[in-house]
Amino acid sequence: MQVAICGAGPSGLSQLHAFECARQNGYSIPNIVCFEKQTDFGGQWNYSWRTGFDNYSEPVHSSMYHNLWTNLPKECSEFVDYSFDEHFGQPFTSFPPRTILSDYIRGYAERNNVRQYIRFNTVVRWISYSDEKQKFHVVVKDLLKDETRSEEFDYVIIATGHFSTPNVPYFDGIETFPGRILHSHDFRFAQHFHGQDVLIIGNGFSAEDIALQLYKYGAKSIILSYRTKPKGFKWPDGVKEVPLLVRIDKESVHFRDGSSHTVNAIIFCTGYVHHFPFLDDNLRLKSTNSLYPADLYKAIVWVHQPRLLYLGMQRLTFSFNIGNVQA
Amino acid sequence: MQVAICGAGPSGLSQLHAFECARQNGYSIPNIVCFEKQTDFGGQWNYSWRTGFDNYSEPVHSSMYHNLWTNLPKECSEFVDYSFDEHFGQPFTSFPPRTILSDYIRGYAERNNVRQYIRFNTVVRWISYSDEKQKFHVVVKDLLKDETRSEEFDYVIIATGHFSTPNVPYFDGIETFPGRILHSHDFRFAQHFHGQDVLIIGNGFSAEDIALQLYKYGAKSIILSYRTKPKGFKWPDGVKEVPLLVRIDKESVHFRDGSSHTVNAIIFCTGYVHHFPFLDDNLRLKSTNSLYPADLYKAIVWVHQPRLLYLGMQRLTFSFNIGNVQA
Repeated sequence: MQVAICGAGPSGLSQLHAFECARQNGYSIPNIVCFEKQTDFGGQWNYSWRTGFDNYSEPVHSSMYHNLWTNLPKECSEFVDYSFDEHFGQPFTSFPPRTILSDYIRGYAERNNVRQYIRFNTVVRWISYSDEKQKFHVVVKDLLKDETRSEEFDYVIIATGHFSTPNVPYFDGIETFPGRILHSHDFRFAQHFHGQDVLIIGNGFSAEDIALQLYKYGAKSIILSYRTKPKGFKWPDGVKEVPLLVRIDKESVHFRDGSSHTVNAIIFCTGYVHHFPFLDDNLRLKSTNSLYPADLYKAIVWVHQPRLLYLGMQRLTFSFNIGNVQA
Repeated sequence: MQVAICGAGPSGLSQLHAFECARQNGYSIPNIVCFEKQTDFGGQWNYSWRTGFDNYSEPVHSSMYHNLWTNLPKECSEFVDYSFDEHFGQPFTSFPPRTILSDYIRGYAERNNVRQYIRFNTVVRWISYSDEKQKFHVVVKDLLKDETRSEEFDYVIIATGHFSTPNVPYFDGIETFPGRILHSHDFRFAQHFHGQDVLIIGNGFSAEDIALQLYKYGAKSIILSYRTKPKGFKWPDGVKEVPLLVRIDKESVHFRDGSSHTVNAIIFCTGYVHHFPFLDDNLRLKSTNSLYPADLYKAIVWVHQPRLLYLGMQRLTFSFNIGNVQA
C-alpha cells in the first residue's frame, strides 16, 4: 500500500511520527512518501527572507516575519509526546520567538526519525483519482533536478496548511494609492514603516501583532480598520481603531463613519484562503477558514473519497498534534 | 481540428488575428480556444496594483509599474498592420506611457474581432501529450466558477510571455538585511523610496529606468551594482555605479571592489526566468533569456513535438508581430 503525504510542517510531521511509532512498535506500515516543496522541515515556521516566489519560482510558503514571537502560549503548540522542556533540557517561557519554535519542530522531526520518509525540494503539481484503477495519480516536480514525474498512491494526506495564500480584498480606488500595499504574508520587518502613517485592514491576531510591532519600531501612526467591531484595547498613543475602509483616493483613506486619514502604507491583515491548486475538483476542499470545514468527516476525512485525508485545516486549533488517525 | 492558445497578450492576439484574417478571407480555420488567466487582453500591459497573487490566488502576471513609459521607440512595438497613428487618429510620440500601449493593444484586439476566441479568467493548469491518442491533454481552471476541466487539442501554442516570473539570486547575508527587498516585478510606485538610500542590483533596462524613476521621485541616493561592466552614463548626482554585490551585513552592502554602503532598500533588476509550470517535461522549454532559445525551430516550433509552438520567447525582440505562421 502506497501513502502520499503533502507537506512536512507540524501536521505532516505528526502523521509521519504516528507511522514511524507504529513501525517501531512492530506493526507493518504502508510505503510512505512525504513531499515537501521547501528544503527543510517546518512548513510555516521555515522562515524566508523572500516574498512572492522562491528560488524555484514556487510561491513562498512562510508568512512569518523576522521578529515574530508566537501569539499563543507555547503549551498550545506543543506536541503531545515531546515537550519544549525535553527539547531544550530546561523549563521554558510560554511565548517563545519564531526561531525557537522552528528549532523545536526540527528537533521533533529528527528525534522521531522521520527524515527517511521525506522528499524535500519536491512540489506536488497535480492529484487526481482514477475510479478505474482505484488509485490516486500524483504528479510531482523535483525542483533540484527540474524534472516532473507521475506516481500512483492508494491514500493521500493533505498537510499543506492554510496560512500561505493571502486573501486580499479590493477596495474602491485602491489602484490610485501611491504608497506601499502589502499583505501580512509579505510582512518581514517593521522597520520598513519607521516614521510612516500606516493603515492596517483587519483586526485579528495578525493585525494586533503587526500594529504593536509597527509601534515598537517607530511608525508615526497606526490605524486599524475593523469590519464588525473594534478590539477596544487600551492601545498606546498613536494607535487607533476605525470602522471599515470604504474608499481610497490617492493617499486619502475614507472609512464607514465618514472619517478620513492620509496614510503612507496599507497592510492587509485579512487572513488567508484555503488554496489547493494541485487538487482535482472532486478532491478539493472548498472551505472558509473555520473551526469545522465542510465535507470533512471528523474534520479529517474527505467525505467524497475517504482515502483522502486533510490534516490541520481548522481555524485556531493550530495544534501540532492533530490527526494521528488512520493506519 | 482543435487549437489551444495560452495567453491573450500581444503574441496570442497576433496569432488570433492571423487565424481571423484567414477566416475572413474565406479559408477554413480550425476550432480555436485562447485561454487567458486575466480578465482582459494585454498580458504584461494589463497593469495590476496587486503584487504576488491576484484575487484568484494566481501569480500576478504584469511587471508594469504605475508610471512606466515604454523604453523602446513605439515603432518597435507596433503591430505591422495596425499603426499607432491609425488607432489614435493622429500622429504620435515615440515613447508613449503604459496606458497608451494598453489602450492600443485592446484596440487591436477589438478591431480584429478576436474576443470571440478568448476564454478570460481561465488558467491553464497542466498540458501533457498522449502518444496513443495523438492529442494534447489540457487541464484548465475556470477561475470565476472555481471549476477545473480537461479538454483535448491537436495543436498548442504557448504565448504566455517570459517577463512575469522574477529571477532573484541569493547574496550572502541577505537574510539579515532589515530593509525592504523587492524585485522589479513587484515595483509599483517610485514614491515608496522617497528620501531613502536604494541599492539596485543589475544594470539592464529595468535598472536604468527604475533608477531614473527613483531619482525623479526623490530617493536620497541610488547605487547600481553591475555584474560585468558599468553603463557609464552621465548619471545625475546621487546616482552611481559600483561592481557586483558580494555580501550583506544588516544595512551594510559590500561590493567586489571593497567599497561598502549603508542602504534602506534593495531592488533586484535581475530579469526574469522562462517558467512554464503547466507543461509536462517533454514539452517544456528550458531556456535562458536569449535571442535564440534552444530546441525551437525558427524560434517557434518545439523540435521534440512539432504540434507545439512557442510565440515571443526571444529576448529584446518584443515585437508585437512575431509568429503569424502555421494554419
